[in-house]
Amino acid sequence: MINYPFSLKDNVNKNINNKNKGMFLEDVINNTNEYYRLNNIALIYKKPTPIQIVKLSTDKKYIEKAFFKEKSTTDYNGIYKGKYIDFEAKECTSTTSFPLKNIKEYQLNHLTKVNDFQGIGFIIFYFTKIEKFYLLYINEINDYIKNNSKRSSIPLTYFKEKNHEITLNLNFRIDYLKEIDKIIS
Amino acid sequence: MINYPFSLKDNVNKNINNKNKGMFLEDVINNTNEYYRLNNIALIYKKPTPIQIVKLSTDKKYIEKAFFKEKSTTDYNGIYKGKYIDFEAKECTSTTSFPLKNIKEYQLNHLTKVNDFQGIGFIIFYFTKIEKFYLLYINEINDYIKNNSKRSSIPLTYFKEKNHEITLNLNFRIDYLKEIDKIIS
Repeated sequence: MINYPFSLKDNVNKNINNKNKGMFLEDVINNTNEYYRLNNIALIYKKPTPIQIVKLSTDKKYIEKAFFKEKSTTDYNGIYKGKYIDFEAKECTSTTSFPLKNIKEYQLNHLTKVNDFQGIGFIIFYFTKIEKFYLLYINEINDYIKNNSKRSSIPLTYFKEKNHEITLNLNFRIDYLKEIDKIIS
Repeated sequence: MINYPFSLKDNVNKNINNKNKGMFLEDVINNTNEYYRLNNIALIYKKPTPIQIVKLSTDKKYIEKAFFKEKSTTDYNGIYKGKYIDFEAKECTSTTSFPLKNIKEYQLNHLTKVNDFQGIGFIIFYFTKIEKFYLLYINEINDYIKNNSKRSSIPLTYFKEKNHEITLNLNFRIDYLKEIDKIIS
């Protein structure tokens, strides 16, 4: 049995429970970002969910009614080696391809703008059934869509060809910045 | 009378109403960031308020109970000319100095880290009574605190000396990136 440090063990247990709820990838990324921050590797955070508060409690200590606001950006951003980092995380159950309908147009637009502004924009994909993590840069995603306008999904072969696989380590982290290191000097 | 475009007129009216509620600075910055985004100048957003959702409505369409979570970063971040931008906005009613107690320690720590990672971290200050906006970079704030450990506020003279005044224009914006331009090439 692996002797996890207490907090990680907690995390792992929590995540086994969350796996069915589609929170696994988010928890892995949050755990990875926390590790990056604690070790002064990068400063990357998950953006909170945007809400519109309608009613506060009388003591103003909690929210009694709020609506979810439409998102216009991605879930994670921050800084690494002086570079602006911005990404989204997506998972699917298919074992052969990633359905494009799972990616929202505003997310592609936002990441494309990040790229235009010389930031590093990408999506981390998790194929839950085969338990594989891949990263694709926004220009790789845009290229695929442009060159395959009739396809409704990105085949697994494309992910393999682009060669940015990320592996889950025993500490319940995916070291995605290792991939970013290959494109920045 | 100035012929504002419809949306700005709305904004101005909304903000006159909000002024007493301490929302004026936030609205001015949001309006400025929107202008930057629409004109492809920069991609800077206000981060949503972090909350912990306790209960959703039965149809899961809205939040019935949620708590405010403790913040650990600042209110705004994004990218400009390839640089990571991160800042906080603060206002005070004093006409002579800015009380340091209005700045939280986690905000100073976060901005200092941004600076360490080669990002651009700063605070925009609004002196409501004299209607003046000033920017101070995090290293200027840290320097002041380090060299004046007995002072509980930053005097207005320090802001003037550092010379990053920003002016509110007729379109209800403060063009703070003009200051940033002076330190990046």
